[in-house]
Amino acid sequence: MADFHPPLGGIHEAALYVDDLAVAERFWRRLGLQLIGKQEGRHVFFRAGSDLLLLFDARAALQPGGVPPHGADGPGHVALDVPDHESLQRWRAHLELAGVEVEHEQGWPSGGESVYFRDPAGNSVELITRGSWGF
Amino acid sequence: MADFHPPLGGIHEAALYVDDLAVAERFWRRLGLQLIGKQEGRHVFFRAGSDLLLLFDARAALQPGGVPPHGADGPGHVALDVPDHESLQRWRAHLELAGVEVEHEQGWPSGGESVYFRDPAGNSVELITRGSWGF
Repeated sequence: MADFHPPLGGIHEAALYVDDLAVAERFWRRLGLQLIGKQEGRHVFFRAGSDLLLLFDARAALQPGGVPPHGADGPGHVALDVPDHESLQRWRAHLELAGVEVEHEQGWPSGGESVYFRDPAGNSVELITRGSWGF
Repeated sequence: MADFHPPLGGIHEAALYVDDLAVAERFWRRLGLQLIGKQEGRHVFFRAGSDLLLLFDARAALQPGGVPPHGADGPGHVALDVPDHESLQRWRAHLELAGVEVEHEQGWPSGGESVYFRDPAGNSVELITRGSWGF
């Protein structure tokens, strides 16, 4: 089925909301992600492969400012993709080394697979092998 | 600066929460995105380029089930990337044709630019030219 819209690359930034930005920063740094943006009390931004994972303090992000306000309460969800089964195995070991518990593992009909963990704020983070959705 | 983690492609799925799944489905279909998953009362999933935009009913997604529960309240945020300035111009026209108001436009120091609009649930959706972050 064709898409009937102008060119679209993909999801470039996903936002999660956290109760403690310092804790979020330590968590993602410990997992080895590169900090690429920070505004004290408002956000920390991390590079996630070719994209960005944005961690916001919801109250601060809801303040009117330069960009349209947003901010949610409750556990969000994001999925990061890894190239293949071997990479996901390496992530399993990487999470264990960092003391991050795997909450759930899931196989998909395509043969793909996912590993789920929580960030310290309770957001559900998924690592999924690329191609699990058939594209 | 090197990343010290196993291979990571990027953000593959971003989740937004909506109060009315049928309205969300109509909205993203009208913008020409391809519906690739649907569970009545729980979610509609759309293909967004090489990735997925997930729209959930938060109450349903918070129910314990096969995958770890999640669900947030309040306006979330996601950024979709387009290849270049010309694509963004085409998206501006595409939004106008669909009756979707542009809330904000933003230029970036890199020379990149963004256009922001709201989905019917109030989530802040950004279209950003790839490369705006320098990678």
